[in-house]
Amino acid sequence: MGKTKNIFYAQSGGVTAVINASACGVIETAKKHRSRIGKVLAGRNGIIGALTEDLIDTSREKPSAIAALRHTPSGAFGSCRYKLKSLEENRAEYERLIEVFRAHNIGYFFYNGGGDSADTCLKVSQLSKSLGYPIQAVHIPKTVDNDLPMTDNCPGFGSVAKYIAVSTREASLDVMSMAKTSTKVFILEVMGRHAGWIAAAGGLASTKGAELPIVILFPEIVFDRKRFMELVERKIRRHSFCSVVVSEGVRSPDGKFLSDLGLRDAFGHAQLGGVAPALASMVKQDLDVKYHWAVADYLQRSARHIASKTDVEQAYAVGKAAVEFALRGKNGVMAGIVRTSNHPYRWKIQEASLARVANREKMMPRSFISRDGFGITARCREYLEPLIKGEAYPPYRDGLPVYVRLKNLPVPKKLSEDFEVG
Amino acid sequence: MGKTKNIFYAQSGGVTAVINASACGVIETAKKHRSRIGKVLAGRNGIIGALTEDLIDTSREKPSAIAALRHTPSGAFGSCRYKLKSLEENRAEYERLIEVFRAHNIGYFFYNGGGDSADTCLKVSQLSKSLGYPIQAVHIPKTVDNDLPMTDNCPGFGSVAKYIAVSTREASLDVMSMAKTSTKVFILEVMGRHAGWIAAAGGLASTKGAELPIVILFPEIVFDRKRFMELVERKIRRHSFCSVVVSEGVRSPDGKFLSDLGLRDAFGHAQLGGVAPALASMVKQDLDVKYHWAVADYLQRSARHIASKTDVEQAYAVGKAAVEFALRGKNGVMAGIVRTSNHPYRWKIQEASLARVANREKMMPRSFISRDGFGITARCREYLEPLIKGEAYPPYRDGLPVYVRLKNLPVPKKLSEDFEVG
Repeated sequence: MGKTKNIFYAQSGGVTAVINASACGVIETAKKHRSRIGKVLAGRNGIIGALTEDLIDTSREKPSAIAALRHTPSGAFGSCRYKLKSLEENRAEYERLIEVFRAHNIGYFFYNGGGDSADTCLKVSQLSKSLGYPIQAVHIPKTVDNDLPMTDNCPGFGSVAKYIAVSTREASLDVMSMAKTSTKVFILEVMGRHAGWIAAAGGLASTKGAELPIVILFPEIVFDRKRFMELVERKIRRHSFCSVVVSEGVRSPDGKFLSDLGLRDAFGHAQLGGVAPALASMVKQDLDVKYHWAVADYLQRSARHIASKTDVEQAYAVGKAAVEFALRGKNGVMAGIVRTSNHPYRWKIQEASLARVANREKMMPRSFISRDGFGITARCREYLEPLIKGEAYPPYRDGLPVYVRLKNLPVPKKLSEDFEVG
Repeated sequence: MGKTKNIFYAQSGGVTAVINASACGVIETAKKHRSRIGKVLAGRNGIIGALTEDLIDTSREKPSAIAALRHTPSGAFGSCRYKLKSLEENRAEYERLIEVFRAHNIGYFFYNGGGDSADTCLKVSQLSKSLGYPIQAVHIPKTVDNDLPMTDNCPGFGSVAKYIAVSTREASLDVMSMAKTSTKVFILEVMGRHAGWIAAAGGLASTKGAELPIVILFPEIVFDRKRFMELVERKIRRHSFCSVVVSEGVRSPDGKFLSDLGLRDAFGHAQLGGVAPALASMVKQDLDVKYHWAVADYLQRSARHIASKTDVEQAYAVGKAAVEFALRGKNGVMAGIVRTSNHPYRWKIQEASLARVANREKMMPRSFISRDGFGITARCREYLEPLIKGEAYPPYRDGLPVYVRLKNLPVPKKLSEDFEVG
């Protein structure tokens, strides 16, 4: 097999509107270095594909199909929610990984995900030597939650933020025009169980000259029902309506998720509600005004049709940088985004040590949340605004975006043994 | 005041992504006929503005602001949910309308809305003569529900349909890439309490060569839990996941809304749930698979960012046609859309008698719903596809769509008496 080594690439955890742009960056950049890099082999359903030797040969896709990954949401090779255990708990898993890597001449391990995958990536980078097979592990950041440290922001977040900002603006205008005789409170539930970055993006909907009455409920701030209702009531008095953007992770003073109301249907069956309907019921009880609520759920993270151009470019860039880091002999690093200027917004990719990334969550700084706890500050706005900038529309056919589906042809297996994942 | 007469224009009921494009069509076309038409006076908050003599002088807006209505969602002058009573019940309301029209030299009454406003429009057209003040009443169709008769489709619907089709495609790809270890059923709740047109649009997400396993629950079809679960299970077995698009109006065999489960929280407070979480709980009980659910609510009808170009053009055209009908002496008519060809799609505007429009709902024909009741037929697809065709992106600044807010300056009142609405 000469001096060239193959790349193993896998997608991990919840997918985003732009994670495939990172895959595109990896594959297109690798092709430019044929003297040193062989093929990019992708894990079918993430790391599970490595453990089960279910690898996808990306070289069998047309270049146009690979290019189309740039505008295709979701995880083109399949992702998974699967965290490798510690070496002590399941050494067999790591040994299996190395065995598969060795069998397929894989010299580079690229893991595209959030905190958990950064941790796995770090472990692989540390263990490969001790297990007698050198491999360079590079982490490619991805998370809609924007909660990774050592990077100014996470690819995937900017597009969700844009979706939430745009949707909040549009729905607020709708409510504004109906408020005289109909809905006065609109509640939008957004993702972000621990960190309020996505909820904060709702605040961008209101800008100078186009103000909107928006109240944000962050998971970082304990829910105070009385103060919240007073604020909503004030906004209604002044603007005739109020929009509420609420993070799924908001908790009441007793530490319980607000969505965890112990709902029962008429037959006594437990119901899993969202925080939006729970909050809507409280608004009904306390203020007795007409309300509507929406839960964006997967719509927000898959909305490639309204992706941020900045986000798409950064997602591609971190994939490209992973290849370049690998070629420069790096190991145990993440391709982080560094903001070098705000006006105009400028950024570059820089390596970050995975030891400083893994198992740490980046919460919203308190200085990004307004003093009353219900809004964003000017500093937060300055941080968020460039991340949603620019449009990067996918191509359309017959009114629908054209998203690529890869052939995802398997690499013939070389190992005789199956491996049980679990 | 010479021979020119003013137009009274009002928006009625739930607003849409393109109702302002109809307003734009009215105002821009009226300006081209200054010899016969004076000003376009808009009702602040719909018909309530006429009753309370709260009129907006649209001639005081800049032409660029009026032009921007074409890409601005919501109701720029305010809308309302207010149905005029019958002449027998509240003759005073009609007399007041005529009084306001007379005071402001209004010769044309343009009402932009759905079934209720068509009915009001018809009554005004019939009564003006008997009340001794001639006025020409023209109805401009608008409803996301697409349930008006005498028009091939309703402005507002195409954009919601596009939003639902695009979102269903995107979220389905997301679930597909996660299904191996995570979510297997995704449920999207959409509007349409009586007619399944919006739910049907979810079926467009799956196209030849890009098939997706989608199950649709229409309000026209009684919910059969056992058959539904069997189908979802079959889809999961075959495709590893299933997307469900469910109309808010789906009913169980006892005639109750599926969302009406009699939910109570731990304190015994009644909770108003949506149909999506109710259905999700049933999926959990019957199939025990991981699910996610979304409720699009106002997001779907205000999503101007992904409006259908066909829809925007038709919304403008019905506004323009209303002026032209008025100039040709028409009264008691609606500007209906007639489809003259499917391949290529061609349409024109034609008058329809309001007597045939008012108080009739157009349901999905049974031939548009697949035999098993869970999908759309080829005929339905042929009907829907042209309506979502084309993109009509709004302008953006700093990552957000720029939507206009009018000055909405009031016309000085001329009547001495106030009028109590209600």
